[in-house]
This record gives sequence, structure tokens and C-alpha cells, in this order.
Amino acid sequence: MQNFNYMTPTRLIFGKGVVEKLPKVMEQFGKRILLTYGGGSIKKIGLYQKVMELLKGYEIVELGGIQPNPKYDPSVLDGVRLCKEHNVDVILSVGGGSVLDCSKAIAAGACYDGDPWDLITYKVKAKAALPIVDIITLAATGSEYDAGGVISRTETNDKIGYIDSLLYPRVSFLDPTYTFTVSRKQTAAGIADAMNHTIEQYFAADTTLLNDGFCESMLRSLMVNGRKCLENPEDYTARAEMMLCCTYGCNGILSLGNSPSGWPCHGIEHALSAYYDITHGEGLAIITPRWMRHILNEKTIDRFVKYGVNVFGIDSTLPKQEIAERAINETYRFFESINIPMHLREVGIDDSRLDEMAHHIAVNEGLENAYAPLTEQDIKEILVASL
Amino acid sequence: MQNFNYMTPTRLIFGKGVVEKLPKVMEQFGKRILLTYGGGSIKKIGLYQKVMELLKGYEIVELGGIQPNPKYDPSVLDGVRLCKEHNVDVILSVGGGSVLDCSKAIAAGACYDGDPWDLITYKVKAKAALPIVDIITLAATGSEYDAGGVISRTETNDKIGYIDSLLYPRVSFLDPTYTFTVSRKQTAAGIADAMNHTIEQYFAADTTLLNDGFCESMLRSLMVNGRKCLENPEDYTARAEMMLCCTYGCNGILSLGNSPSGWPCHGIEHALSAYYDITHGEGLAIITPRWMRHILNEKTIDRFVKYGVNVFGIDSTLPKQEIAERAINETYRFFESINIPMHLREVGIDDSRLDEMAHHIAVNEGLENAYAPLTEQDIKEILVASL
Repeated sequence: MQNFNYMTPTRLIFGKGVVEKLPKVMEQFGKRILLTYGGGSIKKIGLYQKVMELLKGYEIVELGGIQPNPKYDPSVLDGVRLCKEHNVDVILSVGGGSVLDCSKAIAAGACYDGDPWDLITYKVKAKAALPIVDIITLAATGSEYDAGGVISRTETNDKIGYIDSLLYPRVSFLDPTYTFTVSRKQTAAGIADAMNHTIEQYFAADTTLLNDGFCESMLRSLMVNGRKCLENPEDYTARAEMMLCCTYGCNGILSLGNSPSGWPCHGIEHALSAYYDITHGEGLAIITPRWMRHILNEKTIDRFVKYGVNVFGIDSTLPKQEIAERAINETYRFFESINIPMHLREVGIDDSRLDEMAHHIAVNEGLENAYAPLTEQDIKEILVASL
Repeated sequence: MQNFNYMTPTRLIFGKGVVEKLPKVMEQFGKRILLTYGGGSIKKIGLYQKVMELLKGYEIVELGGIQPNPKYDPSVLDGVRLCKEHNVDVILSVGGGSVLDCSKAIAAGACYDGDPWDLITYKVKAKAALPIVDIITLAATGSEYDAGGVISRTETNDKIGYIDSLLYPRVSFLDPTYTFTVSRKQTAAGIADAMNHTIEQYFAADTTLLNDGFCESMLRSLMVNGRKCLENPEDYTARAEMMLCCTYGCNGILSLGNSPSGWPCHGIEHALSAYYDITHGEGLAIITPRWMRHILNEKTIDRFVKYGVNVFGIDSTLPKQEIAERAINETYRFFESINIPMHLREVGIDDSRLDEMAHHIAVNEGLENAYAPLTEQDIKEILVASL
């Protein structure tokens, strides 16, 4: 077991109707709020109107239109400018993980005099950040319970994970009813996203019985409850459990004391969505089983066996190789069964830039240090297998 | 799934050698420290000397001799007096859960002008508390990662759980090597304590697949690693995983969104150790299987079946009643196998005060609202079965 240093100082306020507590929560942070949101779904479900009503008396500056795979330019830059112009005290992010990720970069940028890109690329360490409160409306990224965000810069095909302990949301409101209207496509992508977060941490050289069990429970719950959410989008219990599962995805609690895994599927997927702006969870679902097949060998087989037996209930008396292969096939089939497009071509990616992407990933993602080390050639082969 | 509000703002610094970071951590809280500890085992293992060396330059006031089932009088009262006399800035608790529990009551009492018992009994809500840092030397209570403590008052046979969000340790240092010298008796009691914390949360009316899986993983890990710790007290990996497991026991993360369970075994055990000052974990181990047998019925059987299949690997095709009974027997046998005395008589409790204790528990612990409601008569029967 490895040494670790862990704290998640975010307060989770979870359940139906909890947003009523928003005014009480916001008053501790000040009067001037930057309200961030995405394409307008929060208006369709009445949440925008609800928030405005609850926050009467506050000075609210709005930044809407934040896109999936949130963009440095214009969203982060606009947000930072608005915070500075209006002396904003606190950011209220209302939406999914992209809105919150963008809000985190804004929170740091607003307290920095230079180009916010310096912070995101760690050229400069942030000294302060505005407090962030969020109302999360999509079960997927876990951004509501971690200190990270992923920001894309289109002109350079960069998609960078930016993590700083200053960026934990102070309070996250999680009301599962706000996810009732999430589309089938986005619900499925959210399931895949959270499953991959778990898989990335599960496949490590040094793990514990405890963490393995946590991860296996997450995966089983995500599959069972994810299916229920797709069958009946207003199944409160299923939406709620899926929302709770997603929350644990990225703050490290699933792998305390584990050796680092390198998050290889994320490393590869970030290039896909940076180059082609695809849905992150779909990219992960496409890559994951191909990555699994690529790294299955004598050294890794025991992990696959444990995964297959404990997550999919595969008969533990079968030969190891058979269990491992079945486990990978089950992973693929699950994603397929929830209607995720399982080939890069289906999401608009052909073979024209695979070499370029493989090179970009190899140079920028450090996957030669992953649980199963990946060279540029390995990455290329995984991408080709994913076509 | 129930609504919840959750935050654990404690930083865990975990692993071999982490105590070297103590000076850096302490400097943020001030120069005057109340150092609390127990019977002197920290001197035997050199930890006391190490701490003193690391904290040269600090003004250190000592409160040693804190007993298991820590006492209001003298320990809490002495600690509060010392904090006030010396204007203490921060409490450093070095020892097991009892020392830390006591330190929590002192932390609140030091910031209150009246009798600290007012706070512990919730007659008055604490407005402030001194910050607490701990170095935990026993894997058991989870006090290092929760906001509660249990304080005993001998003259009234009270043993009260005192919980306040002001009492989360700011930083908990967990170095598994400090548990190498914990006796077999205390190691076994720690295993039983943490297992019971998990069982208390698992047996609830409304749970989730996710939480059930977390709890089942905890129990499996505690049994496997607990045995290893007993076989080889210096097995770092086993001691470390057991330490991590124990940490999750009482801060609620195993049951977020579950319906309340009422913690019935704790309700009963608190009276046993208040009246007879027995080892808490041993009391819990004795009560748990008898409580299980007492509450097994048509309403609860499915929980027992899940517990039996997923924790002990009992064949799921057997009749439900058989699985449930086997699960209870396995629980009993596990505790017996780690040499816990499994009868009240073996820990010095005869039948002379059972009526009195049952009445005390029924009046003070609210077990009529537990997962399986318990009347005074039920409590009496569980105690009799435990003799």
C-alpha cells in the first residue's frame, strides 16, 4: 500500500428539493455571483427560474452557453473578464460537469493577473480562487466532488486536466430529479464516463481488497442503475444512486493507497475530443475495451480475472484467459447495449489523423508510466482497433 | 434513497513515516499545544519522544493517562482546565480512539465558559472548538475521520456519544507501523469494533447497491486483513489496509442516503461498558450475533441473506432461513476465532444488573426507532442471550 494525503472538503447536499437551501448557503460567500450554465436546458426544466427566484437580492452576472468539452476561448476568458469587471464574490455553476469544469478554471483565473492559461498548464501555481458552489444536473464526471476540470483549446488541439486543491466546490447540490430530462444519449455517456473513472483506478499494480470491492460495487451499481435510468428516466431511486456513484469517480477515494494507474483511457480520449469535439463518455466507452484487449497479458491477467468474476459474475473456475476475454467482451457489450456508438467512425473520426493524435498523446500524456505502459505505437494500435 | 448532507473536512496523511510532516502541519494552528495521550504505550514505541523532538520550539502542555472508555472526570475536566490555564491553541492527540474522543470533548469544553457536560449532553450547542490534530495508533474506532467521541461518566453509568461538526480533526496522521505493537486482544477488539460499525449501517430498511457493496467490501477486508494482523503483527500491508478500513467506520460514508439504522448494538454496548468498563470492541462482538438472532424474522431475512452470500460466500441457492442462520453463526465464529471472549460472564458481567441496564438502555438510546425496533424486553432478552 502506498502513502497518501487525502481530503475532500466539499459539502454534498443531496436529494429531492435540496436546492431550497441555496440562499442560506450562498449568503456566506457574498452578494455578487457569477452564474454559469450551458446551452439552456436549465431554463427548460425551470431550474434557472428557480435559482433566480431563490437568489432575489443578489447581484447576478450571467455566463451562459458553456459548451461540452468547455473551451478556454471564449468561455474561460469571458468568465474571468466578467468576474474581474463585476468584482464577483462567488461562482454558482448550474449544469453538468462541463459547466463546472469551466467554472473552476474561471475561479482560478479570476484571482490571477496574467493569462489564465499559465495556471491551466501549471506554468504558474494559483495562489487563490473564488469559491464555487454548484447545482449539478448531470450524473457523469464527478466534478462536483473533486478539484479538477478539463479545458479544451481548439486551436492547439489541447484538452488539459487542470487540478488544484483550491478548486473543490465548497458546496455541491445534487437533486436527482434534475437529471430526469437528461437525454438517453447523455445518460448513457454519463454511465460510461463514471464506469471508466472506476476502471481507470481499478487497473493498477498495487491495490487493496477494500478499494477493489469499492470499485466493483461502483461498476455493478452503475450498470444496474444506469439501465434503469434508461428504461424509466424518472426512476428517482435509480437516478439518485447513479448520481451518488458518479460523485465518487474522480476525487481519489476509490484508490486511496493504490499505486498510480496513469488513467490511460482518459489520456487517449482527451485527444479524441480535443481533435474532434466528441462526447467524452462515448469516447471513453469506445477506447476502454480496446485498451483492455491491448494490455491483456500474463502480467495483467489476474486483474482481468478479478474484474470478470466480481463485476460480471463470470464463473471463477473457467481458465483465466477465458475469464479475461469474456470480461472484456462483457464490457464492450454493456456499452453497446446502452446504445453507445462503439466505433470511432460512428462519431465522425476516420483514420486520417490517427498518427498525429497518437503522437500528441504519447508526447503529452505520459502513458509510458501507466499501469500497463503505452508507447506511441501502442496508442496507435488502440486507436486503429477502435475505428 | 434518503436526502443527506455530508462533508468530512479532515485531511488524512497516511503511510509509513508521515509523522515527519507534523511540524509543517502544526505551525498553522499556533504555538501552544495540549498533547493528550493514554497509558504510556506511545513512550514504549518511541512515538512520544519523536513528537517531542519534532515539536521543539512549541510550548507543550501534557495530559497523559487518558483511559479506555475515556472519563469525563478527571480526563475531560483536566484537559479543559489545562487549555484555559495555558491558552492552548491546538490539541494534539497521540494514541487510540479513546484519547482522541476525550480530546474532542476537551476541544469543545475549552471554548465554553460553563460545565462541559452541558455540551456533551447537548443542553448547550458548542459555538467553537479548538482545532484537533491526531496521530492515531490503533485501528478501531474511526474517530480520526469523524466528528464524534464517546465520553463516560462513572458515577451515573452514562456513556454518551457526543457529535458536533466542529470536532472533525483538522489533520489525522495514520502510520500503520505504530500499530505493530498493538496487543492481540486490542487488535481483535479493533477488528470487531470496525466490523460492527459497518454492520450497524448495513442493516437498514432503505439501502443502495453501492453502499451495500462498500459495506460488504469493508467486512471482507477486515476479516482477511484482521487475521493477517493477528498472525503477523508486523505485516505492513495488512495493518495498513485494516487502518484504512477502520477510518471509514463512523463518518457516514458507508451509508449516505440509507435510512437510519439506529446503531442498536452500540446502544446496548454503551451501557455494558458504562456499567462495567469493558473493552468496547469486545462488548460489540458479544452483542452483535445475539442481536442478529433476536431480530431475524420475515421482515429482515432478506438483509441477512444478502449479508451471508456476499460477506461469507454462503451458497445463494440454499433456503433463505438456512443462509441467514449460517450468516449469524459465521459472524459468531469469526469473533470466536480471533479469541474474543464471546460471553458477558467472561468479561466480568453477571446477571445481577441486566434489568437495570436494559431499562437504562431503553430509556436513553431510543432503540424503539431502530431498523428492527427494540423494546426494553427485547434488550433484556439480547442481554440474557449474551450471558
